Amino acid sequence: MNPTHIEHIGIAVKNLAEAIKYYEEVLGLKCYAIEEVADQKVKTAFFKVGQTKIELLEATSEESTIAKFIEKKGEGIHHMAFAVNGLEGVLEEVESKGVRLIDKAPRKGAEGLDIAFLHPKSTGGVLTELCEHKD
Amino acid sequence: MNPTHIEHIGIAVKNLAEAIKYYEEVLGLKCYAIEEVADQKVKTAFFKVGQTKIELLEATSEESTIAKFIEKKGEGIHHMAFAVNGLEGVLEEVESKGVRLIDKAPRKGAEGLDIAFLHPKSTGGVLTELCEHKD
Repeated sequence: MNPTHIEHIGIAVKNLAEAIKYYEEVLGLKCYAIEEVADQKVKTAFFKVGQTKIELLEATSEESTIAKFIEKKGEGIHHMAFAVNGLEGVLEEVESKGVRLIDKAPRKGAEGLDIAFLHPKSTGGVLTELCEHKD
Repeated sequence: MNPTHIEHIGIAVKNLAEAIKYYEEVLGLKCYAIEEVADQKVKTAFFKVGQTKIELLEATSEESTIAKFIEKKGEGIHHMAFAVNGLEGVLEEVESKGVRLIDKAPRKGAEGLDIAFLHPKSTGGVLTELCEHKD
């Protein structure tokens, strides 16, 4: 797979406005985008720190996986996303190595990236996202 | 605080050897160091991806916070660490902004870094580490 860097870290929060305040006022990061991703039932806020983004995720529905995650585990880090090249090929490769795919093929995620998730059951409990910038 | 980048992501694993196999064979990363941190009762394995390290953490005792974390939440992402400059001043600054410190002063962590943890109760559920390279 050879990921180039950590594209982002996804963090489940109960209240996006409060969390933005913490990331801006305490950590000194700048929220550069707020975006609703309707099919994932989340509202997201983005920050950049070095090569990596922090993506805060607030559920917009009780059916959202973020709402379920918070109910089960509390607020906190929800997933880790690697930047890769050739996402389709990478998915085939990791599936051939026994990884269970949540997304069999790339789909569109926040910020227009091609994304796919790997199931935490086959990644040591870490919900893992793979991302590719296609310009 | 103005962190420069994500220094590392700490991941709690049950079995370090199995986890290393996954990170090497599936993700294609290379384990460049294995280190035991006696006072934290963990054995760690390090990988580099872009600017960021992945630090796998296996408990060496049932008293380890990693063992307790896994018992409560299962394997997965345990903490996120920011690289900062002037760690002592940063700790004063964030405490003055209402953040609860786990470490009131920097202490030595893995790889010889100066480190300090912020309590997840005041960071939106994210166990947050601050790190400084002092050469």
